[in-house]
Amino acid sequence: MKPRIKKISVIGSTGSIGVNTLRIVEKFPDRLKVVGLAAGRNLPLLARQVEKFRPARVAVGDPLLIPALKSRLKSKKLDILSGPPGLVSLARDQEADEIVLAVSGSTGLHPALAALQAGKQLALANKEALVMGGELLMKAACGLGNSLIPIDSEHSALFQLLEGKNSEEIVRLFLTASGGPFLTRDPRSLSRVTPEEALSHPVWKMGEKISVDSATLMNKGLEVIEARYLFQIEPGRIKVLIHPQGRVHALLELKDGAVLAHLGIPDMRIPIAYALSYPDRWPLRLPALSLPELKGLTFLEARPQRFPALRLAYSALDAAGTMPAVLSLANEIAVEAFLSRRISFPRIVELVAWVMDAWKENPAASLEAIAAAEIWTRRKTEAVIQRWR
Amino acid sequence: MKPRIKKISVIGSTGSIGVNTLRIVEKFPDRLKVVGLAAGRNLPLLARQVEKFRPARVAVGDPLLIPALKSRLKSKKLDILSGPPGLVSLARDQEADEIVLAVSGSTGLHPALAALQAGKQLALANKEALVMGGELLMKAACGLGNSLIPIDSEHSALFQLLEGKNSEEIVRLFLTASGGPFLTRDPRSLSRVTPEEALSHPVWKMGEKISVDSATLMNKGLEVIEARYLFQIEPGRIKVLIHPQGRVHALLELKDGAVLAHLGIPDMRIPIAYALSYPDRWPLRLPALSLPELKGLTFLEARPQRFPALRLAYSALDAAGTMPAVLSLANEIAVEAFLSRRISFPRIVELVAWVMDAWKENPAASLEAIAAAEIWTRRKTEAVIQRWR
Repeated sequence: MKPRIKKISVIGSTGSIGVNTLRIVEKFPDRLKVVGLAAGRNLPLLARQVEKFRPARVAVGDPLLIPALKSRLKSKKLDILSGPPGLVSLARDQEADEIVLAVSGSTGLHPALAALQAGKQLALANKEALVMGGELLMKAACGLGNSLIPIDSEHSALFQLLEGKNSEEIVRLFLTASGGPFLTRDPRSLSRVTPEEALSHPVWKMGEKISVDSATLMNKGLEVIEARYLFQIEPGRIKVLIHPQGRVHALLELKDGAVLAHLGIPDMRIPIAYALSYPDRWPLRLPALSLPELKGLTFLEARPQRFPALRLAYSALDAAGTMPAVLSLANEIAVEAFLSRRISFPRIVELVAWVMDAWKENPAASLEAIAAAEIWTRRKTEAVIQRWR
Repeated sequence: MKPRIKKISVIGSTGSIGVNTLRIVEKFPDRLKVVGLAAGRNLPLLARQVEKFRPARVAVGDPLLIPALKSRLKSKKLDILSGPPGLVSLARDQEADEIVLAVSGSTGLHPALAALQAGKQLALANKEALVMGGELLMKAACGLGNSLIPIDSEHSALFQLLEGKNSEEIVRLFLTASGGPFLTRDPRSLSRVTPEEALSHPVWKMGEKISVDSATLMNKGLEVIEARYLFQIEPGRIKVLIHPQGRVHALLELKDGAVLAHLGIPDMRIPIAYALSYPDRWPLRLPALSLPELKGLTFLEARPQRFPALRLAYSALDAAGTMPAVLSLANEIAVEAFLSRRISFPRIVELVAWVMDAWKENPAASLEAIAAAEIWTRRKTEAVIQRWR
């Protein structure tokens, strides 16, 4: 029996997840077809992707970029959308069966919600969407697997480990963290860290925002929040382990004492492919994980007290409402400020803490409340940055 | 809803698995009831177990032991069976829902087959039954889980990891081995190993036969054969890894490169309880596996070329027919000969190799052929031992 071809749109196609998604499409042309592509401003790469995959629709980050993209394309008949509304309309496009949402940051929330509301399968790599609007997204999804599959390697691992288990069997989830490039570094020297140093992740090659988030451990904090919503589990049962070797992505402790773990080489094509092939698996023909070559797998409990970014994540979950959105947005702005050398590395997490502390009302997380929190957070965060300079 | 009480019989109740099974029964008196007990010759313990669990039927290893057991019991009305026919009749006893088969060695084959043929759930700790009569048992079983659940920790781990997977997803199975007490010892010194040294396993506290089998690595060889029949997978896709820390019991490599692992503290109550609670899990309240306390998990490929017992196991699978039975029986006799100081430690595996090499006909494994192979193997093995002395 010939398998049906799944039609996918890749929102964020020029980033690391997007590029790897398209490598999988190339590997499985009889299973996948690209019907939509969206990118921010990397027009040369987007144009090459359009020529190769011939989607029916394309979106760019800004309407002003449309002419420049057109001039790079042979086909003049392409439907080109733009800006946040372009992403939303691509996410709901009736041509697509599955949306791979791989933009970074708060941009992801609206297209994620749109895709779920339109009944699409959503392969979600954008963690900020879940952090900001976890309850909204989970309400719009018809259950994990049916309409929402995480791409984040830790969450893909947990999603796989949890398959067929009922929640009553689960004691704890463990997310692993490499610990980032500064794990063993003297904390007093962190104020001199440059963006270049922060971007050199020891295990994964990733985009800029997530690399900085990994260095501050805010990435793991966001993942704790993500896990809380995805798997509907109390925050107290989500633990973080520092695991410098980066081969065990997540673990699951069951009520009889058994612990299940998900391992693999650090290659995002594995979780991306799973989000596309689920419930099947495809032969990716990547190098196998060589267990004998691992020189000793270690795990260190990452106590929230020791890692301020984790502490903030748990306290955002504790506060609930729009607090996770404020955390995520303040962090996004703080990372940009660090990358443009406006604040020092340790200031990123300090800034988030400061802004969260100033967020007093904390209404429940409706789309309107999140939008209001976003405006407030941008203004507040910028004001603090200005004051600190 | 009150759960139905499962009625179990424990065949081999005074050994390590039997005793741990009864500890679980004590922990879950509203889930489990003992209706049958069988032991070889440890009458004091068997009598205490009978007084405590009040089974309807009991079996001892030899009819001559019946009066001695009776004299230890208050209740005089107990139905006492004996010898191999006693085990078989206990295995088929219509009172029991599930049989925990925890005798050691070739004694297990007939009761295992009887339990499956009588439509019982069989929780199988006796690996020799599967090694000797793998095809017969799998034919009698209505599929793994439905009527046969392994208790061996590695196979319980694999059984759990394989749940919900289809065979087409599986690339390889990995069984881990502690490597036994002599892994790092100079091979030339092994001829001076005493039974006491061979019985001191670095990770697990177990019976004598399995402890010696662990020291020779024949235990892992038997487990490779067991896995081949249980999971119906080609021998070439079953690998052994030396994992001295003994916390990862087995791993499963899937076709997309993901590797799933099953970890836990080394406590046989976990796999025993799973065989009783399946498909549920019960809260055993054992100490949790502390990942941070593990000082580095390592894995070393155990090449059959380096470990003669493994090489013999793979070649027995290659020969198929009654060869695995000959391997298992020759090993059983060789281990007894070592424990009674009739042969030296390295001679155990040499003896098995020698006997396997002399087994030329190798008919298909019917019960009759296995019985004939057993007679031949006993005679042959004894003859070689005599010659070597």
